[in-house]
This record gives sequence, C-alpha cells and structure tokens, in this order.
Amino acid sequence: MVHGLAAHLAPEELTVIVNTGDDFEHLGLAICPDLDTVCYTLAGLANFETGWGRANETWNVIANVEKLGGAGWFRLGDQDIATHLERTRRLKAGQTLSQITRDFCQAWGIGPTVLPMSDSPVRTIVQTDAGELAFQEYFVHQRCEPRVKSFRFDGVASAEPAVGVVEALHQADALVICPSNPWVSIDPILNVVKTLPAKPIVAISPIIGGQAVKGPAAKMYAELGIEPSALAVAKHYQNFLAGYVLDSVDAELEKSVNQLGLKTLTTNTLMNHLTDRARLAADVLHFVRSL
Amino acid sequence: MVHGLAAHLAPEELTVIVNTGDDFEHLGLAICPDLDTVCYTLAGLANFETGWGRANETWNVIANVEKLGGAGWFRLGDQDIATHLERTRRLKAGQTLSQITRDFCQAWGIGPTVLPMSDSPVRTIVQTDAGELAFQEYFVHQRCEPRVKSFRFDGVASAEPAVGVVEALHQADALVICPSNPWVSIDPILNVVKTLPAKPIVAISPIIGGQAVKGPAAKMYAELGIEPSALAVAKHYQNFLAGYVLDSVDAELEKSVNQLGLKTLTTNTLMNHLTDRARLAADVLHFVRSL
Repeated sequence: MVHGLAAHLAPEELTVIVNTGDDFEHLGLAICPDLDTVCYTLAGLANFETGWGRANETWNVIANVEKLGGAGWFRLGDQDIATHLERTRRLKAGQTLSQITRDFCQAWGIGPTVLPMSDSPVRTIVQTDAGELAFQEYFVHQRCEPRVKSFRFDGVASAEPAVGVVEALHQADALVICPSNPWVSIDPILNVVKTLPAKPIVAISPIIGGQAVKGPAAKMYAELGIEPSALAVAKHYQNFLAGYVLDSVDAELEKSVNQLGLKTLTTNTLMNHLTDRARLAADVLHFVRSL
Repeated sequence: MVHGLAAHLAPEELTVIVNTGDDFEHLGLAICPDLDTVCYTLAGLANFETGWGRANETWNVIANVEKLGGAGWFRLGDQDIATHLERTRRLKAGQTLSQITRDFCQAWGIGPTVLPMSDSPVRTIVQTDAGELAFQEYFVHQRCEPRVKSFRFDGVASAEPAVGVVEALHQADALVICPSNPWVSIDPILNVVKTLPAKPIVAISPIIGGQAVKGPAAKMYAELGIEPSALAVAKHYQNFLAGYVLDSVDAELEKSVNQLGLKTLTTNTLMNHLTDRARLAADVLHFVRSL
C-alpha cells in the first residue's frame, strides 16, 4: 500500500509511521521486521515473492550459524543481516532508531519519510493457550499455531512517539491506515500515538471475503470470538475513522459499514502485482480527497 | 605448521594453544583472527590463498554494511561472520571462549584440541610513531605502516591461562613454537603462560633469509633496532629453547645459534603447499624426538 502511495505522492507528501512492536533481538542483532519490509519495498530491494527480506538474497551466514548450533528458525539473509548488524552497532553507539532509519533511507535512496512509531522499545506479547509469547516466537517460530487470548504491548505506557511522528500527524492532510493486521500491526502504533488529530482518517480492510490476504488476522478475530470480516475491522477502528475501503467481494457489507457512520469505497483491494498497488493507492487518494 | 603436525599426530597427541591478543570487537562482533585461522585450517575450511578467512567465501554482508556507512576495512566474509555472530551470542550468554572453541571444533570435525591462551581478554597494543594502536588497527587498517616502538598486552597481568592450557603444557612431551611473529603472536602467549614446563621446547624461525614469510615480523625487528634474521628470533627465545629450526638458506647462521646453547635443524621451512606443511612437521617431530 505504501509502495502504491509513493508512486502517486511527492516524497515530501508521504510520511510512513511503522510498527516496531514486532521488533526483537535475535542472535544479538536488533531486528525490525516491519521497518525493514517498508524500507526494502520503497527502495526496490524487497523480495516480492516472500513478502519479507531482500531480493536476490544469499543465506551463507544463517546456514553456518546453524552448523555451529545457533538458531536458524528466523531466516535472515546475508544482505538483510548487514542491515541488522549496522543498526545494532549504531544503537549501541547511542543513535536512536529514527536517526538510523533516516540514514538507512538516505543510503537506499528512499524519498518518503519513514518513521518508527517510537525510539523506545515496545514489544508485542501474544497471550495464548500456550502461554505468553514474544511476537516473533508466536508468528515465526510457532507459525501462529497457539490460540490467541489477548495482546499486550510491553513498554507502551512509557514509549513516546519517535521524533517527527506527532509533527507528521498534525501536518498531514489525511491519515491512511494500511491493510495490515489491526491487532498486532496497527494497534501498537495507535497505542503509542494515543491521540489522533482531527483529520480525515481512512482505513483499508486487510480482510477480504472473511480471509486475511496474508498473516493471522482472520484467525485472531475468530479466536477472540469475533467473526472475521471487513465489517469487524471497520468496527475495530470506528471511533476515529471517516472513511473505509473494502473489497468488491464484500460489497454486501458496505451498508453495515455506512451504518457505523463511515463513508465507504468499494473497489478491488487485492494487490498481487506492483500495478495493483499503484491503482489501489490512486483509488484511495481520490476517496480521501472526496471526504 | 599446526596443519602439518595434525597430519602426523593422533588427535589426542596434539594440543594447540592460540594467541588471542589479536582479538577485537568490530561491528559489534567478537572476532578472534588467530583462533579462527587455526580452526578453519584444521577443518579444511581455510582460504589457502589469502591465509585468512574461509574458502569459497561470499561478501554480501560487508558489502551492504558499507552501503549503510559502516566500516568495511576489516574484510569479513559471510561464512566467517556466522562464526563471529554465534561466538558473540554465546559470550554474551556467559560461555567462555574455550567452551565456545571446543563446541565449534566439534561442529567443524576438528580432532586436535584447540585452546585460546586465555578466557580473559588480552589486547595487543602496538606503540608506534603514530601513537598507540590496537593490533588490528595497526595490522589491517594501517597496513603495518606506522613505525613500531614497543608492544603492550593489555589485560595480561590478570589473565589466567584458559582451562586446559596449564594441564596441556605439563602433560606434553614437548612444545613446538610455530613459525609465527615472536612479538605479537608468540609473546602474548608466553606472557599469559608465564612459566614453561621443563620439556624440550623447539621453535621454528618465521624469518628466512632476513625476510618474514608473511606479516611484519622483519619490519618490526628492524624498527626496534635489531637486524631481522633467524638468529635474532633464536635470541628472542633462547632462555627456554632446547632446539631451533632454521631454513637451509640461513645455514651460515647455524653455528651462531648453536653458540647460544641450542641444537639446530636446518631444513626447508618454507610452506607453499599442503605437502610442505606435512614434510616440515615430520622433520620437526623427528628433531624434537632426538633432543
């Protein structure tokens, strides 16, 4: 979605605020999966097939770490490890995550501003029938198999938004909530930001026909006792939303979303190819401007 | 030399005590160049052309670290980085360097026992006309260009020999000092070990025809005001040496070495190929047994 927006907006018109609740330390490296996926995508370095990591990647470090008895369940490519290694070094030298991200974006030739939601660590904990799990332990190591009961964002009470986040929110003409997991990708940001400005806010449903396009969003809704649907996501955000974008296959839900007080755009929201990203972004921008 | 000895001795007959004064932290990684070169060589993983690092190496991490503004002067290959990453993780988890080295040797299928000289950090500082330099800063970054005045081994006073070192020295039939740099590769070990057992001790000259086979040993001797030669190295060790191995091109120095009270073996000591290593080791073992 961000990639599509970047295709239509000048670099200074787009600021991306990224979840860091999925961040963790692994093999001694500070890993920020969401930040890196956004940056690799905007830089044209992303692996489009996997949806994570870098294209044309090699795996010589992790293969050899495994030979020495180290953990191999979190697949880190060699080019990707360079990002974590240099970030870890800079964090230890006292730089903030937002400074580091700014420098990396410059090195990668990324135009839009990419901001971590906070420079303080916030860690998403998934409370499950298999106990409390750090997010990557739940998501990658245990493949989202444990049944979810609730979520906790450790550190969120004391975490300030990163430098630039509050300013960006107040200078923006509108806010777009990308079609990501409401529970673990968007809620951490909302919990850090705490108050949203009085601007048009639009969300795009990550659920199409009752299924998450990828990831465990639909499974989480079901396990929490809510029928997974584009409507459920609209209700999740309804307190602050002006508009809502849902997929054409969910057209029959449009009226129910309107009854929540939200304007709607019904369009094809599935992004299989790069051109889909740009087309959906154009539709969303048009919708936002109409509000 | 160690590779050659390993070709002739049963695994339980050979213990290698390795200098850790060259160790340093770089990019947040605990790097042990001498330990790794010994282990990679014994495991058949070493790069025979460079004399450091691993064969069939790729360089994707360091290339990308450099793109992000990180230091690239110390060339770390991808497979090699796996070693440092897993070692760093284990050190932070409280394992000792000798434990880690034992585990790595097992993973790499290395038979002989490889011991770091100490589990405590000892850091070789080169005092030069360009100031005090950490060893790798002098050796790699500044290419041994500054003029050497003296050496210091930070931490050596409080560093105990690693578990197994003292036992190995006392159980050994003989000690072989490999043809390495006396000032910065052997002296740190001797300074940690402090007292050598009353066993035949033999050294092989790293200087052939006044030149170091590789590295700055000859340059260091000259800068310290000593004419670099196989004889100068014999004098360096003479207090505890029983026998000395020098190259055939230095045959005219044999008598002077004998006058120091040392038995001598004059043979071809240059090791260009794997077969040279095994042949020299056979000659040295024969010489040691004759003492």
